[in-house]
Amino acid sequence: MAAEDNKDLIEILENQNSIDVAKYMNFVSAPQAGAIATFSGTTRDTFDGKTVLELVYEAYIPMAIRCIKSVCTSARESWNLHSIAVAHRLGTVPVGETSVFIAVSSVHRADALEACRYLIDEIKATVPIWKKEVYSNGEVWKENTEFLERRSELGKKDVAVEIKEHKKKLCCGTKVRVNHEGSQD
Amino acid sequence: MAAEDNKDLIEILENQNSIDVAKYMNFVSAPQAGAIATFSGTTRDTFDGKTVLELVYEAYIPMAIRCIKSVCTSARESWNLHSIAVAHRLGTVPVGETSVFIAVSSVHRADALEACRYLIDEIKATVPIWKKEVYSNGEVWKENTEFLERRSELGKKDVAVEIKEHKKKLCCGTKVRVNHEGSQD
Repeated sequence: MAAEDNKDLIEILENQNSIDVAKYMNFVSAPQAGAIATFSGTTRDTFDGKTVLELVYEAYIPMAIRCIKSVCTSARESWNLHSIAVAHRLGTVPVGETSVFIAVSSVHRADALEACRYLIDEIKATVPIWKKEVYSNGEVWKENTEFLERRSELGKKDVAVEIKEHKKKLCCGTKVRVNHEGSQD
Repeated sequence: MAAEDNKDLIEILENQNSIDVAKYMNFVSAPQAGAIATFSGTTRDTFDGKTVLELVYEAYIPMAIRCIKSVCTSARESWNLHSIAVAHRLGTVPVGETSVFIAVSSVHRADALEACRYLIDEIKATVPIWKKEVYSNGEVWKENTEFLERRSELGKKDVAVEIKEHKKKLCCGTKVRVNHEGSQD
């Protein structure tokens, strides 16, 4: 599923073997843009000393796209950007493969570089995408540490008011996980 | 011409049509690296309101490689990095094409993102690569603004001492331009 408006392209990729990095870099490139910054988040082979075999991502796609759009809008308010592309895989992502890719272009390099950093930090912290870590000796579903921290910050005050005030900080009020087996865990 | 040691790859590309971005991203990717940050510097179509047709880069290659190596070493001292790749084209780079590409990988994303920013800033400021801007109505050889600023900072004090002290700030004492026609301008 994809969303494209202004000069932003957001794609949540289901059942796809890999992220086509060249496609997104081409999308953001333009004669007037002198700079492209990218970030790739890949599955690494260890976490907290445990051997990781793969990661599995799930999300309620319309909400994930809405949240990523909100982060892109916020980035455009802070930096002078030409184009943004964000791609996130769902399903199984083996070690060494990319789960999330961000490309940002701008006239001058500071804008693209700073916005790229902001985008990945905010996406990790605010977009409800669930991650299962599959180890050699077990597996665990977990929310992103940064997501939990952001939720915890909001929890210190009146959450309803804070979510309204900090809409950009956490675009979705609740983190929804779609469980294909129908159970909640 | 290329230089590869530790996990760094530095290539100065002569007479080449394009930079193979995938090659450098593959070079830095590894099962233990969870993050890859990249930066592409491309020729844009305007500069100071003038229409740019193309840029032309020249360098004394062994010195350029030595300076880029020095910047990579310095980055490794500040961040926990897995691999670095830097490619810079020489010769004509038309509008929309990439002249410099940097890819950095690390276990955690902050290291790759911050080092990528540092690498492009330092390469622009310290590596002696000459640039000719070809406009629709003329052309001009110029040093990078940042290079001149860094030189100017050094010039305020005893340059010999400063260059020694700030070896990492400006790895080469003089900026050398190779002029294939043999003239100095």
